[in-house]
Amino acid sequence: MEEVYVLGIGMTPFGKHPDKTAADLGAEAVNLALADAGVSRQDIEAAWVGHVYQGMAMGQRALYAAGLSGIPIDNVENACSSGSTAIWDAAMALRAGAYDIVLALGVEHLTNLFRGAFAPDPSDVEAQIGLTMPGIYAMRAQRYMVQYGVTSEQIAQIAVKNKKNAAMNPLSHFKKPVTLEEVMQGRLIADPLHLHECAPVSDGAAAVVMVSKAKLHQLGSSRAIKLAGTALKSGRTEVGLADMTVEDLTWRTAQTAYEQSGVGPGDIDFAEVHDCFSIAEALRVEGMGLVPHGEYVARVGKGEMDINGSFPVNASGGLLGKGHPLGATGVAQVVELVKQLRGEAGERQIQNAKVGVAHCRGGKAQGVEGTACTVNILVA
Amino acid sequence: MEEVYVLGIGMTPFGKHPDKTAADLGAEAVNLALADAGVSRQDIEAAWVGHVYQGMAMGQRALYAAGLSGIPIDNVENACSSGSTAIWDAAMALRAGAYDIVLALGVEHLTNLFRGAFAPDPSDVEAQIGLTMPGIYAMRAQRYMVQYGVTSEQIAQIAVKNKKNAAMNPLSHFKKPVTLEEVMQGRLIADPLHLHECAPVSDGAAAVVMVSKAKLHQLGSSRAIKLAGTALKSGRTEVGLADMTVEDLTWRTAQTAYEQSGVGPGDIDFAEVHDCFSIAEALRVEGMGLVPHGEYVARVGKGEMDINGSFPVNASGGLLGKGHPLGATGVAQVVELVKQLRGEAGERQIQNAKVGVAHCRGGKAQGVEGTACTVNILVA
Repeated sequence: MEEVYVLGIGMTPFGKHPDKTAADLGAEAVNLALADAGVSRQDIEAAWVGHVYQGMAMGQRALYAAGLSGIPIDNVENACSSGSTAIWDAAMALRAGAYDIVLALGVEHLTNLFRGAFAPDPSDVEAQIGLTMPGIYAMRAQRYMVQYGVTSEQIAQIAVKNKKNAAMNPLSHFKKPVTLEEVMQGRLIADPLHLHECAPVSDGAAAVVMVSKAKLHQLGSSRAIKLAGTALKSGRTEVGLADMTVEDLTWRTAQTAYEQSGVGPGDIDFAEVHDCFSIAEALRVEGMGLVPHGEYVARVGKGEMDINGSFPVNASGGLLGKGHPLGATGVAQVVELVKQLRGEAGERQIQNAKVGVAHCRGGKAQGVEGTACTVNILVA
Repeated sequence: MEEVYVLGIGMTPFGKHPDKTAADLGAEAVNLALADAGVSRQDIEAAWVGHVYQGMAMGQRALYAAGLSGIPIDNVENACSSGSTAIWDAAMALRAGAYDIVLALGVEHLTNLFRGAFAPDPSDVEAQIGLTMPGIYAMRAQRYMVQYGVTSEQIAQIAVKNKKNAAMNPLSHFKKPVTLEEVMQGRLIADPLHLHECAPVSDGAAAVVMVSKAKLHQLGSSRAIKLAGTALKSGRTEVGLADMTVEDLTWRTAQTAYEQSGVGPGDIDFAEVHDCFSIAEALRVEGMGLVPHGEYVARVGKGEMDINGSFPVNASGGLLGKGHPLGATGVAQVVELVKQLRGEAGERQIQNAKVGVAHCRGGKAQGVEGTACTVNILVA
């Protein structure tokens, strides 16, 4: 298949943007990505736009606001994997030879939309009786604790690490590190998960300009990063399965990305993974086969997943620290990978980063049925 | 680019389905398409699902209900072009060589969702002061009447033709022909458009199984129809432009489909076009260059666009007669093209149909900004 590259990246600050619309945020990310790629609006041949709750024609509103019109614009949704699904679609179009330079945008404005808690769908009986997202991840954390003999304090260290990283990311929602004591004294959302262990409600957008190999040669940029593998899968959540600490969906998705890229788990230097809750980070890294099952949490405590550790995870701050504007998240992960692989991550730069992986996992379709998982592998 | 074929088609009855969910309807269409293609659930490698208002993970809900899980599932939205955008994406993936057999589904359950009128977005100032969809098309009809010297009765003939065709379609929302008098005596929605000249609020789903050329040869089916061209574009609506009877977006999209397929306007035998309002049918057929500007309405009066006429349009009944479950519409058009090109359209069979075109046009992004247009060309 045709090789695909990320040429330019753009990202708004994540956080609360009461004075901006989703279209404003989307346009801002697009303009930043175009500038970073060194291309103009007129160069873009097609665009895929991931979001969850922004209503009809979100992509058109954002792209028209950025001065792009006329081209194919496709709005895609896959819960928390919406942005990464947009990248997956964009890569497909480049590989088809249909276009040579395309855009993937992820965008979400949540704070104007959800003023209270996320209300579960009335038809979702499991959620109505408590099987909400925090409920599901709390159950999985409890099981992990029993099965692998770790404490809730050890799990909470994931939040401490990610908020420490976020404090070094100028675009993150949270700018203040937290201590383990602060996490443990925080409000208990679903035992054992405290407030700091749950991703916030954020606004934001992120965009990438993607090109074919031929286009890259024509443009001659030295800052492009290869998207070596991109995979999307669907499947059940783990609730009710034999072992809910094992992410079969994550493993199947990663396997496809490994096969496509020729990169194995042992070749990967660092990861951005879907830490919607502290425990989720452990489940994802283990799910991709990057750390043996049951070992992740203990290793975080030893500093191995710190930016200067042997396998840095969520150097950007992750969802817990950088924020989680649903549709933007998957694209923002790829933006971080590109920054790290270019050596442009500033204070939080990972040394000798050559191969990075981004993992996204989308919610529930109904009851315990899962939605979508994506794995993107980038190689410097 | 790799050749792409429609191997199997499936469609639920369009209309009111108070006892079914969107997932039920989607699963029904998928199962029909699989049976028609002669393949099993396990054969499908990926799926794209178009809908507008069905919420998060619609595709997963429908496909899981049909027993498909694990594969990549992508939810796409492009207003009234959502279903045809799913086809466009699916074709891209086949052309990329990523898969050999995929599914495109369009689905919408509107009657449980909208019990009153469609309320315009509060931020859409133009709509708030009357520039709703009926308002826009009424203005365009008025302009057409002045510019080309036709009457509202002549435009209303389009509704008479399409409801007559719908009466011959066992899956259509409306089963009863209407006379010109009945149309003209109907409630005036936006002068000159009467109730029968506006597409209804419908529920329904339609699905197609699509395959690569290699897969088709392997399966050896003789009922597959070639998707020779598939195009998607975005752009402004015509309100406020110099001539709002001319659809620049439709023309640009059709041009791309013509170039891709090697089929020109003169080669096309029949069309399914987006007749969300009676006048819209004229604007689309003229927009694609199939009939000179200003001539369409008069020609309908002469019977040229009847099923036994020289250029049949909306033999299925179109949106006016077959119904308009938004996301399902674009896929249902392709289902009709395949039926006609296979010679399986029964009572409404078009004689010597070899090349057909399907046209969809999606609403407003904001104010007068348009969303999406798709053109699919199928060749027997």
